[in-house]
Amino acid sequence: MKSYFISFEGPDGSGKSTVLKQVVAEIAPRLKTQYLVTREPGGSKIAEKIRQLILDPVNEEMSAKTEALLYAASRSQHMFETVIPALKAGKIVFSDRFVDSSLAYQGAGRELSIAAVKQINDFATSKIEPDLTIFLDVKPQVGLTRIAKERAGKEDRLEQEKLNFHQKVYQGYKKVIKAHPERIKVVDANKPFNLVVEDCVKIIANQLPADLLKD
Amino acid sequence: MKSYFISFEGPDGSGKSTVLKQVVAEIAPRLKTQYLVTREPGGSKIAEKIRQLILDPVNEEMSAKTEALLYAASRSQHMFETVIPALKAGKIVFSDRFVDSSLAYQGAGRELSIAAVKQINDFATSKIEPDLTIFLDVKPQVGLTRIAKERAGKEDRLEQEKLNFHQKVYQGYKKVIKAHPERIKVVDANKPFNLVVEDCVKIIANQLPADLLKD
Repeated sequence: MKSYFISFEGPDGSGKSTVLKQVVAEIAPRLKTQYLVTREPGGSKIAEKIRQLILDPVNEEMSAKTEALLYAASRSQHMFETVIPALKAGKIVFSDRFVDSSLAYQGAGRELSIAAVKQINDFATSKIEPDLTIFLDVKPQVGLTRIAKERAGKEDRLEQEKLNFHQKVYQGYKKVIKAHPERIKVVDANKPFNLVVEDCVKIIANQLPADLLKD
Repeated sequence: MKSYFISFEGPDGSGKSTVLKQVVAEIAPRLKTQYLVTREPGGSKIAEKIRQLILDPVNEEMSAKTEALLYAASRSQHMFETVIPALKAGKIVFSDRFVDSSLAYQGAGRELSIAAVKQINDFATSKIEPDLTIFLDVKPQVGLTRIAKERAGKEDRLEQEKLNFHQKVYQGYKKVIKAHPERIKVVDANKPFNLVVEDCVKIIANQLPADLLKD
């Protein structure tokens, strides 16, 4: 059965999760097939337990490699329980974050190298890649300012990292985007919310195979 | 500083943990240097949290790859917080299980392939290997009968696996032993407890660099 796998990526504070929600609301009536919205880390019961472990600010002594392996473990379970069954059932899957996040955050941000982090994620995903990735582009300074306002001291363990870390993450994303120009489409997320959503909807409608869309 | 890293391996029910305890009690007075006894999965606060997740029978829908990645994550944290600092401080480290367990249980038992599991563990350990590994050899049938008596229905998620799984684990161990005859020494764990301990103590005393032992 035809299926389609879309991931949303972006720095913290890019508005990714809210944009994704609105994009799905707008595109859903035009889809011919069922869809599933999911997120990483998490997206299944066991994967959510791993997510809690990763993001809990209590676990401040967690090593970079442990963090990368936990993300890969959570992703592997997410693939096994959620993403692969949905794709096999011919659904369109929208995922809030996927492997590119690990390449940027752990590979570049934590300086474990993008290649090393890709290798453990190839194991986790059996090399299944999104058909389309939307990168919501905001500079880390902008993203962090947004988050500081919204969360008011309740940031998770990764959001708490300093600007320097988020700058390395952003550079990591830029490298990954350069290596996958066909798959990853960049959307300027400095624009007003409704225009960002509009750009995303246009890209998805353009890229989706015609037989998954109503006329 | 001189340090030495010893791991204990064996099928479930090989008596590994009790043997290790007694071996350390007997060899400790002969050591010139400090030592540390630790275990996997676990051996640090975060690693123990991951251990709970792996072994909890509630998580029965955990995929083989997730299990392998969680073991690697737990090991990576154990290395970072416990093993590497102890080795850097010149200590002798005794670990109840290490990478060979993952090669046997997840590589062979779960059929993920020993090579693939080795790759994610190379990432986790930065390729640090034990100087000496003692394999307590009992056939899986014997081990499982011992466990059934001791635990009486309170087996953890991996111990609950059927004989067929434990036979694949055992064959996996045999492959790993064959590939590392210098590092891994096999002890017949069908013998009475005190003789098994005696064999282990002899091997360790023989293999430890002379300047780590009292005359």
